[in-house]
Amino acid sequence: MQSPSSLDALIQALRCLPGVGPKSAQRMAYHLLQRDQAGAARLSQSLERALAMIRHCERCNTFAESPVCETCASPRRDNSLLCVVETPADLLMMEQTHCFRGQYFVLMGRLSPLDGIGPRDIHLDRLLKRAADAEVGEVILATNFTVEGEATAHYIGELLRARGMTVSRIARGLPVGGELEHVDSGTLAQALIERRALR
Amino acid sequence: MQSPSSLDALIQALRCLPGVGPKSAQRMAYHLLQRDQAGAARLSQSLERALAMIRHCERCNTFAESPVCETCASPRRDNSLLCVVETPADLLMMEQTHCFRGQYFVLMGRLSPLDGIGPRDIHLDRLLKRAADAEVGEVILATNFTVEGEATAHYIGELLRARGMTVSRIARGLPVGGELEHVDSGTLAQALIERRALR
Repeated sequence: MQSPSSLDALIQALRCLPGVGPKSAQRMAYHLLQRDQAGAARLSQSLERALAMIRHCERCNTFAESPVCETCASPRRDNSLLCVVETPADLLMMEQTHCFRGQYFVLMGRLSPLDGIGPRDIHLDRLLKRAADAEVGEVILATNFTVEGEATAHYIGELLRARGMTVSRIARGLPVGGELEHVDSGTLAQALIERRALR
Repeated sequence: MQSPSSLDALIQALRCLPGVGPKSAQRMAYHLLQRDQAGAARLSQSLERALAMIRHCERCNTFAESPVCETCASPRRDNSLLCVVETPADLLMMEQTHCFRGQYFVLMGRLSPLDGIGPRDIHLDRLLKRAADAEVGEVILATNFTVEGEATAHYIGELLRARGMTVSRIARGLPVGGELEHVDSGTLAQALIERRALR
């Protein structure tokens, strides 16, 4: 006995989700078809809509529906501070500390030579152009304190300081090996306040 | 700073998947948009297609694309044996033992009064009609050995025996509290061979 082909295709398709193996995918497919067809329809439509609508902000590179995102377009942000983060999730965590009113640049990754992720893949050319904006007085590096995040911060720091920019790194208030996404807002706020100049 | 609304909608929609909380949903959405747009499109289409195609087999109640599923329509199955399982996943596990050539009935659940799941929700009226087929000589109860699965087997067993049917239960070769989906084929095969008549 085979599963119907459209069911098999759905189970296979669910495996594109991170952390979902064959058993989970099967359980998800059965759950959707048996218990939550409305949710499944909503998910299908949301995926289609997000794929059609979501692009990258021309200035900060985060996900946005307009060419320039709300934060970049806001007149109430401090344009002299530019905070570099790895992902949009990290950007949201920074915002939740309520103690940073500057601008962002989202790398959408981190340097990882073993995975074949080089400077071009994390859009460093665009970051350099963005940081060269006359309004920017300081670049704050808020990549993760993982090996790759630290290497990325070091690499970007060298590039920017060679161009005479003021560069700082959020304080190592985060646990070593930790990731921004999983830390509490208080710790992250402390790390932001205690950022130190690279020398 | 807000996430774009189509991204927020996608994150919300992903939460209909079992075991997916807010953080996982966010990670999944970012992953799909940043690293696997092809997978996301495939998932959207698979969901839509499965919702349109998948129905329940008129005879055994499992997921199928045709009115009667392959197993029920097959001339090579032994119609004298009817095996009752909770879910299509359990049916697949039974098939993987390669030692059952009879027919199935899939309850699509189990009795669970606390969750408001009664005899009607697990289609017992249809099971009784199916089991009344003149060809059926024995009904094998292969619900899980959980509290609800055992109660379901007991309830169905009483109903069928009151109608003079031969009813058996797969052997308790499975660990107590265990579920069919998570057991190895050998253990399940043994449990099938050692099924005992209800008395």
